[in-house]
Amino acid sequence: MGINGFSTLSETTGKVITCKAAVARGPGQPLVMEEIRVDTPQKMEVRIKILFTSICHTDLSAWQGENEAQQVYPRILGHEAVGVVESVGEGVVDMKEGDHVVPIFNGECGDCAYCKSQKTNLCDKFRVNPFKSVMLNDGKCRFSTKEGEPIFHFLNTSTFSEYTVLDSACVVKIDSKAPLKNMTLLSCGVSTGLGAAWNTANVQAGSTVAVFGLGAVGLAVVEGARARGASKIIGVDLNDNKQVKGQAMGITHFLNPKDFGIPVHEKIKEMTQGGVDYSFECAGNLDVLRDAFLSTHDGWGLTVVLGVHPTPRMLPLHPMELFDGRRIVASVFGDFKGKTQLPHFVRECMQGGVKLEEFISHELPFSKINEAFQLLIDGKSLRCLLHL
Amino acid sequence: MGINGFSTLSETTGKVITCKAAVARGPGQPLVMEEIRVDTPQKMEVRIKILFTSICHTDLSAWQGENEAQQVYPRILGHEAVGVVESVGEGVVDMKEGDHVVPIFNGECGDCAYCKSQKTNLCDKFRVNPFKSVMLNDGKCRFSTKEGEPIFHFLNTSTFSEYTVLDSACVVKIDSKAPLKNMTLLSCGVSTGLGAAWNTANVQAGSTVAVFGLGAVGLAVVEGARARGASKIIGVDLNDNKQVKGQAMGITHFLNPKDFGIPVHEKIKEMTQGGVDYSFECAGNLDVLRDAFLSTHDGWGLTVVLGVHPTPRMLPLHPMELFDGRRIVASVFGDFKGKTQLPHFVRECMQGGVKLEEFISHELPFSKINEAFQLLIDGKSLRCLLHL
Repeated sequence: MGINGFSTLSETTGKVITCKAAVARGPGQPLVMEEIRVDTPQKMEVRIKILFTSICHTDLSAWQGENEAQQVYPRILGHEAVGVVESVGEGVVDMKEGDHVVPIFNGECGDCAYCKSQKTNLCDKFRVNPFKSVMLNDGKCRFSTKEGEPIFHFLNTSTFSEYTVLDSACVVKIDSKAPLKNMTLLSCGVSTGLGAAWNTANVQAGSTVAVFGLGAVGLAVVEGARARGASKIIGVDLNDNKQVKGQAMGITHFLNPKDFGIPVHEKIKEMTQGGVDYSFECAGNLDVLRDAFLSTHDGWGLTVVLGVHPTPRMLPLHPMELFDGRRIVASVFGDFKGKTQLPHFVRECMQGGVKLEEFISHELPFSKINEAFQLLIDGKSLRCLLHL
Repeated sequence: MGINGFSTLSETTGKVITCKAAVARGPGQPLVMEEIRVDTPQKMEVRIKILFTSICHTDLSAWQGENEAQQVYPRILGHEAVGVVESVGEGVVDMKEGDHVVPIFNGECGDCAYCKSQKTNLCDKFRVNPFKSVMLNDGKCRFSTKEGEPIFHFLNTSTFSEYTVLDSACVVKIDSKAPLKNMTLLSCGVSTGLGAAWNTANVQAGSTVAVFGLGAVGLAVVEGARARGASKIIGVDLNDNKQVKGQAMGITHFLNPKDFGIPVHEKIKEMTQGGVDYSFECAGNLDVLRDAFLSTHDGWGLTVVLGVHPTPRMLPLHPMELFDGRRIVASVFGDFKGKTQLPHFVRECMQGGVKLEEFISHELPFSKINEAFQLLIDGKSLRCLLHL
């Protein structure tokens, strides 16, 4: 039995690990549960044992191969997870075997001009890049099939595997007492939505807010706005089934754009004396984006774009509309600097300020990952937690 | 002789004034110097005697009738000026006969939700509206021909007249010792550019800046960035003749996009380790706007739009480009709250911090206003000051 109670882990240090992974082998094809080999972590890399993982829309898009340039196979997807450090590569001093960790797709090297700036959480080396499929150190994969065929990486993380290797810039050590299941959500969805409300928009007590799209990210925005004391939180979704969950999370009003003869931004203006202070686009649709933009109050309204827009269309905003004083920005990972800020955020969650458990709508064993994808496609799940 | 030494003014109080004005009678037609009648100021209005006025591109656009909805004639254009209060209407308590004043097209009523917000300088009632052509009080004109035909107002100001009537929300009392000629520039161009650097972007010492379009507004941005201690100020213009003046005002580098085989934003990135902190679009051209946007550093770059874009084209930016952390905002009147902040700005100028005189390239009598228009059209003048 090792110091940390993970005696089985230490036995694998320095060795190739053979384990199970859900491998994507073609666009939209069911993931294949395969035995794969996971190499040892190299310089400044960490190998972790994944305990829980979940599926986000970015995984879905990559799986469906919406963007041809993303069609790299075989590949291990997945970026929302929590795990335990199995071993660390040369030079890693902030983590050790047995530490509880959260992978982050938007890394923080700590050394580049971006990481040293207080104005951004984009890292020069480890920012979001859906086209990157190999490790930075040597341009190679740490995954391979039993036959030695390389299996490609995804979003700096690749968590649909019992073991994965990440750059230490993309691994955050968290409090060992934090409830592991819930921490999975901080890996992406909840941090993205809640951080957009707290960091990007800086929602204040008494502010009015509209959230377009009540999936996990949208509900995390709602949670963040509620925690900050927003006076009105208007949830907008085409699916009436989202109303109940939305209200449980804190929306004060629900609007289905189909219910009105006028554009939803006009309805919101009526409800808020000219528009909300902050709107959040969590739908990945440009018409929704325009509605979100126009639903804010002129003079000071801010729209935060969180949705992914895989479209050739440009922004449907006229340059002169900017002169009405409405602003629009995008937010990546809720503007959290992962390694610096996430440990504090974890402690805030542990104190009960954020209702993380509300985001887990389903739980399944890892072997049923294709069912979990279907739940998300059907709009039935917020987050389906997969147990490894 | 009155208390303020303007004995002639007091004789006109309460009476219709007959004076000269340069009247626009059709799109692009030379302004006609006519005898007109100027009514007394009504409730919360001020009648002022214009001493100096100058021409800005917005006057040029309105004169050319670029936008059909703006083709309202006869009309008195003009919005950059300085004058003396001739008389005030009922309820005006912050100004009196003889006060030196600057008209502002972007008014400040002080009472609306916008004026009470610290986040905007747009007023509910008196913001920029090129279609507004009558007074708010009664929907009528204060100008008429000798035959009684109404002459329409422009941009809350109409300064191409010996006398004009404005809402008091659009008149700023300034220090009586301020040099009047120079103060004309604070009415629009210099406040717009300098305020964009100071208020909208908040340029800091050591920042890097690119200014696209070196007309009066662009040079005012340069002046503002220089005063703040920017380390690099890159001026971009298609006209090489702008280089000398730009350098006199503070640009450290001049780029003519025609001189390079690569887009100018790539050249700027080479010069600034990845892009400038702030870029300013002062050209009113969407391709330039895109270049300005891409010339900023990803992660934290801010583009401030100052140019007017009379085009049906939408913003040439892709929604996903926002995720690179570049931001874009527009700025009206340099985000100055006119009545609150301009008096302080005037005192700063009096202390010599801003080189206002550099912006006056020509001076002509009011009767030669059509020559002054031609100087601006030909790109020969920055500002031609007209003496009334």
